[in-house]
Amino acid sequence: MSATRKGARSQQTRKMKQKPPRLRHLLGIEPLSRAEITGIMDQAESFRAVLERPIPIVPALRGKAIVNLFFEPSTRTSTSFALAANRLSAQCINFGLKSSSVSKGETLLDTARTIEAMRVDGVVIRHSMPGAPRFLSERLDSFVVNAGDGCHEHPTQALLDAFTLRRKLGDLKGKRVLLVGDIAHSRVARSNILCLSKLGARVAVCGPPTLIPPEIEKLGCQVFYRLDRVLHEVDVVNMLRVQKERAGTSTFPTVREYRALFGLTRERLGKLKKSVIIIHPGPVNWGVEMDYEVAEFPQAMIMNQVTNGVAVRMAVLYLLAGEHDDENQ
Amino acid sequence: MSATRKGARSQQTRKMKQKPPRLRHLLGIEPLSRAEITGIMDQAESFRAVLERPIPIVPALRGKAIVNLFFEPSTRTSTSFALAANRLSAQCINFGLKSSSVSKGETLLDTARTIEAMRVDGVVIRHSMPGAPRFLSERLDSFVVNAGDGCHEHPTQALLDAFTLRRKLGDLKGKRVLLVGDIAHSRVARSNILCLSKLGARVAVCGPPTLIPPEIEKLGCQVFYRLDRVLHEVDVVNMLRVQKERAGTSTFPTVREYRALFGLTRERLGKLKKSVIIIHPGPVNWGVEMDYEVAEFPQAMIMNQVTNGVAVRMAVLYLLAGEHDDENQ
Amino acid sequence: MSATRKGARSQQTRKMKQKPPRLRHLLGIEPLSRAEITGIMDQAESFRAVLERPIPIVPALRGKAIVNLFFEPSTRTSTSFALAANRLSAQCINFGLKSSSVSKGETLLDTARTIEAMRVDGVVIRHSMPGAPRFLSERLDSFVVNAGDGCHEHPTQALLDAFTLRRKLGDLKGKRVLLVGDIAHSRVARSNILCLSKLGARVAVCGPPTLIPPEIEKLGCQVFYRLDRVLHEVDVVNMLRVQKERAGTSTFPTVREYRALFGLTRERLGKLKKSVIIIHPGPVNWGVEMDYEVAEFPQAMIMNQVTNGVAVRMAVLYLLAGEHDDENQ
Repeated sequence: MSATRKGARSQQTRKMKQKPPRLRHLLGIEPLSRAEITGIMDQAESFRAVLERPIPIVPALRGKAIVNLFFEPSTRTSTSFALAANRLSAQCINFGLKSSSVSKGETLLDTARTIEAMRVDGVVIRHSMPGAPRFLSERLDSFVVNAGDGCHEHPTQALLDAFTLRRKLGDLKGKRVLLVGDIAHSRVARSNILCLSKLGARVAVCGPPTLIPPEIEKLGCQVFYRLDRVLHEVDVVNMLRVQKERAGTSTFPTVREYRALFGLTRERLGKLKKSVIIIHPGPVNWGVEMDYEVAEFPQAMIMNQVTNGVAVRMAVLYLLAGEHDDENQ
Repeated sequence: MSATRKGARSQQTRKMKQKPPRLRHLLGIEPLSRAEITGIMDQAESFRAVLERPIPIVPALRGKAIVNLFFEPSTRTSTSFALAANRLSAQCINFGLKSSSVSKGETLLDTARTIEAMRVDGVVIRHSMPGAPRFLSERLDSFVVNAGDGCHEHPTQALLDAFTLRRKLGDLKGKRVLLVGDIAHSRVARSNILCLSKLGARVAVCGPPTLIPPEIEKLGCQVFYRLDRVLHEVDVVNMLRVQKERAGTSTFPTVREYRALFGLTRERLGKLKKSVIIIHPGPVNWGVEMDYEVAEFPQAMIMNQVTNGVAVRMAVLYLLAGEHDDENQ
Repeated sequence: MSATRKGARSQQTRKMKQKPPRLRHLLGIEPLSRAEITGIMDQAESFRAVLERPIPIVPALRGKAIVNLFFEPSTRTSTSFALAANRLSAQCINFGLKSSSVSKGETLLDTARTIEAMRVDGVVIRHSMPGAPRFLSERLDSFVVNAGDGCHEHPTQALLDAFTLRRKLGDLKGKRVLLVGDIAHSRVARSNILCLSKLGARVAVCGPPTLIPPEIEKLGCQVFYRLDRVLHEVDVVNMLRVQKERAGTSTFPTVREYRALFGLTRERLGKLKKSVIIIHPGPVNWGVEMDYEVAEFPQAMIMNQVTNGVAVRMAVLYLLAGEHDDENQ
C-alpha cells in the first residue's frame, strides 16, 4: 500500500475535510482508496483557484527541493511538475540523464540515493521499467511520484483527467466513460480505468482486438470493437494517443485505417451526446486519433486538462511533502 | 500592430513619463513607434541601475512564469532572458525541444498552447521560421517575445544596441551608424536598421555586393561596398557576425578575403573617429570580422552590450507582463 | 595565491572565529592554507546544521547569480552546486555547452566574459583542460570555482571528503589515510593528498605501479603496490573510481584483475580496523573497486559524503560571494 491515512478516527476527525489523508508516495492509482483520490482532487480544487490569482504562488513548500528524474523524455510532464513545484515555492531541479547510465538496477538506485542524500524531499520519476517508482519508494526516505512507468501506470494523468471530468460533470458515479485506442500498451488507459472505476464511473474501452488486453473485463470494463456502436451513448470520450511508430505493424492498423475505424473524425462529432466531454492526454496526433476540428469543439477539454494538470500536481506534491499541521499554505 | 498604447490621452496622461506605453507582444522593431522604443529604453535605464545594486532583484514579476521556447540553440540569449526574468522575481523555465517535433505548424501551435494552458504568462521564442512569433501571438493570450525568427527580426538585440549607443552618445538623431557584413541574411541587421532609423540615426551598410539586399536603399540606408571609404566618417560601427559556414560559397568571400576587405583589423582602428563606438552582437569570430585587438579598444562596447541586454530584456518582460498600476517594482 | 586573508591581525581579530578568511576564488587545494581549509569546514559545519532544519534555506546570497559552466557532463556535481546555491537563496543557471564551441582558449574566455557581463557573481567551471579555472580567474572579476579541471584538481571533492572525515574522526592530525586506485590520472587523488597533508594526516597510496606517478613520495605519500599489506593498518580508505574505459589497456589491469588486487571486496572488509572509515567519490562501479556489500557496511560514508558535499559547496559559495559583514545569514 503506497498510501496510508493519518489521524483518521482520531479526535481530528472533524477536521478531515481540510486535512486530506496523508500520502507517503504516489506510485499508482491502484493502491489509492476512493477517499484518497477524492482528497487529492479536493486539494487540487483549492490550488486551481490559486492559479487564477494575480500572483499565483503559495509559500506551502518553501525550502523544499524536488528532483525531476526523467529517464524517458517528456518536456510536457516535467514542465508541469516544475511549474507546480514553483507555484508552491519549492525548488525543482532537473536531473538530466543519459540513457547509458540506466542499464542496471543498481545504477537507478545509486542515482536516486545520491539525489536523496543531497537532502531532496521528493523524486518525480519517469522510467520505461514498470515498477521502477515502487522499487525506489521501498529504498528511499524521500517521497516518490510516478510520472509514468512503462506500460504500468501514470497516476497524475488519471487524476487530472478525473479532476477535469468532476469539474464539468460533478460526481462521476454512474457516468459512462469510453477509452478509445491502444488499451493494451497504455499506462494512461490503465490508470484511467482504475481511477474512474474507484470513483464509480462505468468504463468501456474500444479499439482493435489486438490492442485490447484479454483480461480487461475483470477490471469491470465493457469492451467494444466498433466505435460507432457505442459513441452515441457515452458521457465522456477519452481518445488515447496513437504511438505512430507502432502503426502498420502486425498488431496495429495503418494510420488511415485507424482513423477510419477508431478516429474521432469531424463526421463522428455529430453522433455524440450534446453534453459529452472529450479528453485526450496530449500531444494529439491530429488527423489520426482525432481530426483537428475537435480542438475547436466546445466540449473538448484538452487545454483544460493541461491547466488542471498543474493544479493536480501541486496537490500531489503538497500532500506528499507538506507538514499539513503548519499554517503555511 | 503588435503594440498598443493604453491610457494615452486619458486623465493619466501626465503620468505617461513613468508609465511607458503598454506592449502586448514584442514581435519586431517594425511595429514599434519611436515612443515605444524610447519607453522600453527608459524602463531599461531604471533596471540598469537595479543591476548595480548589491542585491539586484526587484519583486515586479513575482509569481509570473516565463518559458524560453528555443527551437534554435542559443545559450547566450536564453541565459540573458532567464537572468532578466529572475532579476524581476519571475520564474523562467526552459522548454527544451527536439527539432523532430518542430516539423509541422500545428505542432508549434500545440506546444505553445500547451505551455500557455499551464498558466504561463509569456513565451520567449526563437525559431528558424520567419513569422513564427507573430503566428503564436495571434493565437495565444500569453505575451510573446521574438528572440530571433529566421532572417526576419531580433528585436531585443536591436534594442540593446540602441540602448548601449544612447548611453554613450545621448540622442541618436543624426548620428551616423555603419553596419558591416552580411546584411542580406541578418535579422540583427534588419532590426538594427529599423530601430536606428526610427530613432533618427543615419544608417549606412557595407559588405560584399552579394550580401547587400537590393531594396536596401528604400529603408533609407546608404550602401558602401568598400569599408575604407566610409569607416573614418561614422559615429558607430556595428560589426556583424560572419556565419563561417557560408564563407567560400558562391555568394561569400573566403575568410581571408573577408577580413582583408570588411574586417575591423588592427590597422583600421587608426582610421576611426576618436569618439567612435564599436559594437558587435557576439559571439565574435576573432580574426575574421574583427581582430582581437579591438576587444581591448576603449571604444568597443561588446561587454557593455551584454550587460545592457539583461536590462533591456528586464524592461521588455516587465512591460509585457507587468500590471503597471501596482506598486510592486 | 588564489586565497588571501582579510582583516587578520586587525582589530577584528577576536571575531575571526565567526569570520572565516576571505577567499577570492577556489582553484584548488594547493593554494589554500590549513587555516583556510579549516575555515571552509567550519562554515560548512554551520550549513550542515541548516540542512537539518525543516525549511533548509538561508537568505545569505539573495540576489546573487551563479552559473554552472560544465564542459564535461557531471549531473551529480552540477546538481550539488545548484542545490547549494538555492539553499543560500542564490540563483543558479546551467550554461549548457556544446563541446564544439570549446576548441579555442579565446572561446572559453569569451564565454566566461559574456557570462560575467550578464552580472553573474560566480562561475563554477568543469573543464577537461588543467588550469582552465585559473585562466578564467585571472581574467574575470566574478569568483571562479574549480569543479574539476582535467587531471589537475577537484577541490570541493577533497574538502567534502576531509569534512566527512573530520565529522567522524575529529582532528585528522596523524590519522592514516589510504587512497586506492588510479593515482596518476585522478584529480580527486591529487586534491585529497594535498588537503589531507595540510590537515596533518599521513597519506598513503596503493595501486598498480603503472598508475602511481613517479614523484608521488615528494608529496609526502607512502606508496604500496599490494593492498593487503596496508589495509589493516589505516584509519581511512578512500576507494577511487575506476575509469572503466581505461581497463584492459597497456597501463591498466582487466576489471577482474583489478578487483582481485585492489578492490574492496567483501573478504577484505574483515581485515579492516573496526573504526575504519570508507569513502568513495562516487559513482561507484560496484563489483570493480568495491563490492556491493560495502554499501551496507556501517563504516561506509558514501551517502554522508553526498550530503556533506552540499554543505561544503554552500560554504564555498558563501565565502566567495558573501559580504560577510552584513547580517543576512
